[in-house]
Amino acid sequence: MQRILNDPDHIVDEMLKGFLKTHSDIVEKTDNPRVVKAKNIPEGKVGVVTGGGSGHKPAFVGYCGKNLCDAVAVGEICSSPTAAAFLDAFKAADGGKGVACLYGNYSGDNMNVKMAVKMAKKQGLTVKTVVANDDVASAPKDQREKRRGVAGEVLMWKAGGAKAALGGSLDEVIAAAQKAIDHTRSVGIGLTPCTLPAVGHPNFEIKDGTMEVGIGHHGEPGIEVCPLETAAEMAKRMVEIVVPDYPFESGDEVVVLVSGLGATPVMELYVLYDEIDKILAEKGIKTYKAYVGNYFTSLEMMGATLTVMKLDDELKELIDLPVNSMGLKQF
Amino acid sequence: MQRILNDPDHIVDEMLKGFLKTHSDIVEKTDNPRVVKAKNIPEGKVGVVTGGGSGHKPAFVGYCGKNLCDAVAVGEICSSPTAAAFLDAFKAADGGKGVACLYGNYSGDNMNVKMAVKMAKKQGLTVKTVVANDDVASAPKDQREKRRGVAGEVLMWKAGGAKAALGGSLDEVIAAAQKAIDHTRSVGIGLTPCTLPAVGHPNFEIKDGTMEVGIGHHGEPGIEVCPLETAAEMAKRMVEIVVPDYPFESGDEVVVLVSGLGATPVMELYVLYDEIDKILAEKGIKTYKAYVGNYFTSLEMMGATLTVMKLDDELKELIDLPVNSMGLKQF
Repeated sequence: MQRILNDPDHIVDEMLKGFLKTHSDIVEKTDNPRVVKAKNIPEGKVGVVTGGGSGHKPAFVGYCGKNLCDAVAVGEICSSPTAAAFLDAFKAADGGKGVACLYGNYSGDNMNVKMAVKMAKKQGLTVKTVVANDDVASAPKDQREKRRGVAGEVLMWKAGGAKAALGGSLDEVIAAAQKAIDHTRSVGIGLTPCTLPAVGHPNFEIKDGTMEVGIGHHGEPGIEVCPLETAAEMAKRMVEIVVPDYPFESGDEVVVLVSGLGATPVMELYVLYDEIDKILAEKGIKTYKAYVGNYFTSLEMMGATLTVMKLDDELKELIDLPVNSMGLKQF
Repeated sequence: MQRILNDPDHIVDEMLKGFLKTHSDIVEKTDNPRVVKAKNIPEGKVGVVTGGGSGHKPAFVGYCGKNLCDAVAVGEICSSPTAAAFLDAFKAADGGKGVACLYGNYSGDNMNVKMAVKMAKKQGLTVKTVVANDDVASAPKDQREKRRGVAGEVLMWKAGGAKAALGGSLDEVIAAAQKAIDHTRSVGIGLTPCTLPAVGHPNFEIKDGTMEVGIGHHGEPGIEVCPLETAAEMAKRMVEIVVPDYPFESGDEVVVLVSGLGATPVMELYVLYDEIDKILAEKGIKTYKAYVGNYFTSLEMMGATLTVMKLDDELKELIDLPVNSMGLKQF
């Protein structure tokens, strides 16, 4: 395992130390070592919280910052933060107007968020939630509630964070984040597995010369293993999964987010995006804004995800608002 | 080769198409398909140009933008842009006050920049150059002119770009960029090789369980191959190479830039940076600002580079100026 580590069991704590030092202009620590909060949270706004397992940088802690998430609960690698961490994140983000917890649909996160929301209620703190489920490949459309949250979460945080920054009420923030994720579909293609530092070898396999369509960020099985394709063919396959599901239609304006899974060279993501944009344009779907880079990764996995969100006037305004975080900076 | 490609021979052109679409708010194309320029370059400023081979994203084209490089010449993967591309980049960046070409010390780049400067002179355009040579491991200190330019180039562009944006004359921009690189030292550690898409297999080897200290961004041999170390040991080794060479001393304020080489998970870079910062602090060297992430990569190579720059009041002002580019966004 060719990696930069000390004790794998302490990697999350050590990472957070370096992260907090590097971004001391944007974030600060809290009394809970697994909760990071944004610096200088404006008073009187709805708090926005997320959280999740580590190893997905910039997700989750990289989206803590101005006009984005106010506090983030940090879990071990590929495992949910504790309920106590979510609760402390709620408290750190609370400015008296309630807290919106915007997170991804994984069993551990669901369980811990639910417990934390109950505990918060007992302490007089109102928390409402939105659960991201943008990963088309993880369940059929009539079982959307079973689908995982993947890179579409970035757009959910962007929309919810912006709504809160613009003075939205808790219900308005929740509605904006829910709308964002409801208008969003994603799919991933994995080209290589990844290795958890504490394990030391990949816990799943992708054979050379093949690719796994619909793979999850923790190596959850996809819908098809097929021979490795060209960028143009991958783009077509991804678009053909994502577009009919929503469905996105001619005349739609969309945000396109192409994220690497960690180890794929960024230049290849631009090649892939160019192909995706061409296919969308052929369908009459216009890219209003594109994000291309490593936005939601899985350690050193190779591959990419495609996320498409349909815009309306409200979502456009929310997407356009400047943000300052490690993972997303926008003027 | 588990990569996202169409025809490897066209990857740079295809990448540029996706890049220009994604960042149409920051950059635009020129008549030369291998020259990208910043949008809305302020009138009457000194032009700042760089260029280099592809595969090092965000370098080089990712540093084209506001208060940074005005135009960038783009080469094939790991090979210099042509003299014609450098010349066209000079013309694209020229606002009548001359052009500063800030590039890295590689034979192809040296040759093509020199030819382009001569051609520019014939056309009445004044171009002065700074050649980055921050890579300590690539030659002894008394042969600094032989050293390669690596991630320290980012700080050279930051300083030169800021000086030009603040209204500096050509000589002042050149002096600031020269000062920045003279005050900067870097070293890299490679953990895995990388594969050029057109070749299909690594053209050098790093055995599992070993690491190559002082490796170059194109797999140039380092100064030592040794058993893989912990992050703390790697940090110590990197600091002990970089610090005595300049030398950085107790009381110095520095910028620290830790860049991944492409495929190393970003969380591990934070672990490494935390160790580096601790050792620098023990030496009385204070980190004024840190950059940690993928700033100068080598396709899907694993490993990291450490870059340290000593600050004075002028360099602090230049480092602090906001920038907006794909590779570096700073409020």
